[in-house]
Amino acid sequence: MNYPNKKNNINNNIITYSNRGMDLESDINNSNKYYLENDIAVIYKKPTPIKVVKVNYNKRINTKITEAYYEIPSTTDYNGIYKGKYIDFDAKETKSKTSFPLNNIHSHQIDHLIKIKNHGGISFLIIKFVTLDETYLFETKYLEEFINNNERKSIPYNYIKENGYLIEYGYYPRIKYIEIVDKIL
Amino acid sequence: MNYPNKKNNINNNIITYSNRGMDLESDINNSNKYYLENDIAVIYKKPTPIKVVKVNYNKRINTKITEAYYEIPSTTDYNGIYKGKYIDFDAKETKSKTSFPLNNIHSHQIDHLIKIKNHGGISFLIIKFVTLDETYLFETKYLEEFINNNERKSIPYNYIKENGYLIEYGYYPRIKYIEIVDKIL
Repeated sequence: MNYPNKKNNINNNIITYSNRGMDLESDINNSNKYYLENDIAVIYKKPTPIKVVKVNYNKRINTKITEAYYEIPSTTDYNGIYKGKYIDFDAKETKSKTSFPLNNIHSHQIDHLIKIKNHGGISFLIIKFVTLDETYLFETKYLEEFINNNERKSIPYNYIKENGYLIEYGYYPRIKYIEIVDKIL
Repeated sequence: MNYPNKKNNINNNIITYSNRGMDLESDINNSNKYYLENDIAVIYKKPTPIKVVKVNYNKRINTKITEAYYEIPSTTDYNGIYKGKYIDFDAKETKSKTSFPLNNIHSHQIDHLIKIKNHGGISFLIIKFVTLDETYLFETKYLEEFINNNERKSIPYNYIKENGYLIEYGYYPRIKYIEIVDKIL
């Protein structure tokens, strides 16, 4: 769990801010906002799971949590509905130019994506190669195929490029991933 | 927002524990676990949204959150997939024997349920009349119909009984709500 670093990443991204947007999470939240406002899709990021240990309860002011810890999520970060279909995905960034390291994603998140696929949902990863500034929608079936046939701890960039879909950037929405979901459907 | 009271509710329920189960949330979590383990449906409770203000970051131990506050959820508590369909619902308890007070549910949660219905998902409330020990699955279309045609701040018990589905209790799963979803499909 790397949440405090995430904050640093956001700060870095503000410094190196380009017209393409900020970090991947902000870009996806921006896209989901667009899809929601335009009644195209209803997709939300799930809250980060936090185990609350101590609270200060005060009737006059908001309850203050004074001790809590981040927990490992059971599922992916994003889910919702598009054209009646259940959509489920996670978003991951890597600085590598040559591969996507599988330790970026928890094994139970992979299991979850596969379960969703098997139940008839649309599940995938959105993978951003930060250095190349390329973002791919990578369907669970290719993730599963790769894991079942390889001992490698990372998925080569070329495998993702060949089997995934390059996502177009825009201003609003910043990451036009629903257009790709349309191709899959 | 009533989270600290929720803790009291759990304690109360332990004292008054019956073979029917604990509070509604625990019962639904129990059912979702059953559906997941038996590969029937993949439905999770979303984490409670919490705004983190201060953390103590320490490399050797887990990051400790020292100041945080509960936030109002944007959506419902539960969502997932069943038979390829997007499922979305919230669970509410009332001690009233005669009606379900609408102030139990945030207006943006009602909006969310209606959006999901309009996008072709299966959305509903699970309402437990604690004193009567009756639990109903109440579809969004009837919730919407009631709100559009009534000025009342609560839905009469009889309206829910007539338009909803009484959910059977069991040992595992405790709340057999997927059987009702099957009837709706």
